[in-house]
Amino acid sequence: MSLVNHLLSTSISSSTSGFLGQNKLSLRTWNLSVPAKNSGICRCIASPPLEKNVAYKTKVSRNANMAKLQAGYLFPEVGRRREAHKLKYPDEKVISLGIGDTTEPIPEIITSAMAKKSYALSTIEGYSGYGAEQEADDVFVSDGAKCDISRLQVLFGSNVTMAVQDPSYPAYVDSSVIMGQTGQFRTGVEKYENIEYMKCTPENGFFPDLSTVSPTNIIFFCSPNNPTGSAASREQLTKLVQFAKDNGSIIIYDSAYALYMSDDNPRSIFEIPGAKEVAIETSSYSKYAGFTGVRLGWTVVPKELLFSDGFPVAKDFNRIVCTCFNGASNIAQAGGLACLSPEGLKAMQEVVGFYRENTNIIVETFNSLGFKVYGGKNAPYVWVHFPGQSSWDVFGEILEKTHVVTTPGSGFGPGGEGFIRVSAFGHRNNVLEACQRFKQLYK
Amino acid sequence: MSLVNHLLSTSISSSTSGFLGQNKLSLRTWNLSVPAKNSGICRCIASPPLEKNVAYKTKVSRNANMAKLQAGYLFPEVGRRREAHKLKYPDEKVISLGIGDTTEPIPEIITSAMAKKSYALSTIEGYSGYGAEQEADDVFVSDGAKCDISRLQVLFGSNVTMAVQDPSYPAYVDSSVIMGQTGQFRTGVEKYENIEYMKCTPENGFFPDLSTVSPTNIIFFCSPNNPTGSAASREQLTKLVQFAKDNGSIIIYDSAYALYMSDDNPRSIFEIPGAKEVAIETSSYSKYAGFTGVRLGWTVVPKELLFSDGFPVAKDFNRIVCTCFNGASNIAQAGGLACLSPEGLKAMQEVVGFYRENTNIIVETFNSLGFKVYGGKNAPYVWVHFPGQSSWDVFGEILEKTHVVTTPGSGFGPGGEGFIRVSAFGHRNNVLEACQRFKQLYK
Repeated sequence: MSLVNHLLSTSISSSTSGFLGQNKLSLRTWNLSVPAKNSGICRCIASPPLEKNVAYKTKVSRNANMAKLQAGYLFPEVGRRREAHKLKYPDEKVISLGIGDTTEPIPEIITSAMAKKSYALSTIEGYSGYGAEQEADDVFVSDGAKCDISRLQVLFGSNVTMAVQDPSYPAYVDSSVIMGQTGQFRTGVEKYENIEYMKCTPENGFFPDLSTVSPTNIIFFCSPNNPTGSAASREQLTKLVQFAKDNGSIIIYDSAYALYMSDDNPRSIFEIPGAKEVAIETSSYSKYAGFTGVRLGWTVVPKELLFSDGFPVAKDFNRIVCTCFNGASNIAQAGGLACLSPEGLKAMQEVVGFYRENTNIIVETFNSLGFKVYGGKNAPYVWVHFPGQSSWDVFGEILEKTHVVTTPGSGFGPGGEGFIRVSAFGHRNNVLEACQRFKQLYK
Repeated sequence: MSLVNHLLSTSISSSTSGFLGQNKLSLRTWNLSVPAKNSGICRCIASPPLEKNVAYKTKVSRNANMAKLQAGYLFPEVGRRREAHKLKYPDEKVISLGIGDTTEPIPEIITSAMAKKSYALSTIEGYSGYGAEQEADDVFVSDGAKCDISRLQVLFGSNVTMAVQDPSYPAYVDSSVIMGQTGQFRTGVEKYENIEYMKCTPENGFFPDLSTVSPTNIIFFCSPNNPTGSAASREQLTKLVQFAKDNGSIIIYDSAYALYMSDDNPRSIFEIPGAKEVAIETSSYSKYAGFTGVRLGWTVVPKELLFSDGFPVAKDFNRIVCTCFNGASNIAQAGGLACLSPEGLKAMQEVVGFYRENTNIIVETFNSLGFKVYGGKNAPYVWVHFPGQSSWDVFGEILEKTHVVTTPGSGFGPGGEGFIRVSAFGHRNNVLEACQRFKQLYK
């Protein structure tokens, strides 16, 4: 039965049973907002079709692109294994350093601004409805980078080719598959056809050898990178911009972790001269201010960025945003404004500083155990090398023996095989305990 | 320069100039959250390509589907004309009964719950990050119906055919065009190729003659309808479900105005037996609780709804939601939970009741002036007939002579020609003043 049914039936009849029904449903429907249940993942495993003797089937064919998608989105699969582990070891304390979900409270300077906006919505003066006039400006406020990435895919459509860092954040590839930009998944090589995987390994300093990269229309590039934690230097990004310019490509630059940069690499692609003619940049408050649940981000589409016919990309993206989206929550935006205040910026730096300390603890632990460790310095992710081993095997052994959830590197692309990603997002005591368990396992 | 640049430069150097730059930008970037500027529209008019002597063009072709889109999304165009009118008559008080943007404060029972959630995010116990495990359930919580409509379009892809009520909410057709489901726009008939326009007129009681409708994969159906304000009866919806079943179609039922129903028509398509095998329902808190800016909605995809190969539609939609979206703001969800409380339901009914009174005032005004008036009874929209006249001409005359913004019916499809839609969303004094001006104009 639908929520609207419950909602309306209960708003019409105020019978006790009605309210019980509604309350029961509200808990079920709205469990997304119950912190205790927040495991930060979606279960998206495609199940086999139901048995043939179903009552009725429509004549609508399943989108062939959806059928191309492998298993489930990475993090749901990790979550599935974690839940299975919890069932197997109900008395053990499972620590999650897997999905990069923030754990520390949002600074009060920011939450009080959101609370103030909430209360203001109950006043004539403070009330606001639909977002204000979206000028075809270069900055588009959104509900997060992941959402903007998929809107950008809709903008470009199915007839573009794309390249990704290998390994990289799975949403780039999966959204490309959904839009029909790719061919089938080829098991064995573990790649989709028609996607250019730009290998990023310790050997090349996690920056692709562009002389071996086939030109594509779109280049997804994330720095500091998820999952490797490596950040591209000014020289490297200058090369990337030149590479895009030489080939007429558009870079979609993901700077969601830029605030974690501890050295002087560029924080934005737009620090590179000429980048405005070839790049879009998307980012988010999720990892800056703990907004993973509040939802707020932005995407910059420079006016200088033009399609081959000279039409500004920003104008089409504005049309997508107007037609397919209705703006980020005005309450979240009030929080974003507070983030930009002097106190807010300082508070965000403190949150980032806390996670940076976590990162150092994890890096030192694996170093002390003799592992080759990458990342960490400029990102909240530690990329640990297990040469010759399967990522999922290592993931499984760590989970089985230490009850700590990590993320298998191969989940980010074939280039991640033999690595695991350890996230620094966690309460300090959990990070310390997890590291103790790692020392027990690998001593 | 990008927001992230400003954000980081100011977070690194705390120089006065840095803060000034950041503050200046934050105002520009975040003006979406400045109530004073809330005109509730986006400017999405496609401009001609820049002159040929531009510095640089990428080699990426513009998405041909984007180029099919006509002028701008309706409401931005209405907004553009309103702004032009304000410039022409700077001293006149312009009243907007155009776009259906809510104007009344959100009941405190709801905003206090959101404020409480905001504050809780500053505590270890109350903090929550990414949304909880999304079970492949039948109810998907979202940031609004408009956003879910575009996610549903991505789900179905470019190889489906679709039908819409004519007239209807423009986002159905525009998102279909963007996904490549349609052909070109045919001026004269004012329709896109490959879309089935189901004419809804006073002659057929605003319910399409299904015997003349060509079967399609998808049928968008909104009841109570925007813009005509008419609601389908139980018999009519039973016919619609049977029509879908006979043709193997999927109905996407938009019930965003169901709470405005004053008679006993179905509030949900799922009140019709068998609908779960052929229908999806999407709805929103925007018009129920004034959440147009807070952003919260839901979509119901029954487990019983299957593609032709027997694969459950809900499983693919869950994959879309996991890959392209990260859930509605947890603060907005706290507000949604409060809406479902007994006090919240009562408060929503009061807000709806206020707008219903506005609707009656508008209906009585046009009736007293001898116009044929439709809608109003079950929706916050009044559909006024101006036989033989052009909607844009009527819109223009009303704006010019009364400084009241309405919406031209033809903006909702060719079937809306000769009508204007008057929205009941407005402060009481504005609605009364607008009606006085109508009486002056048409007395």
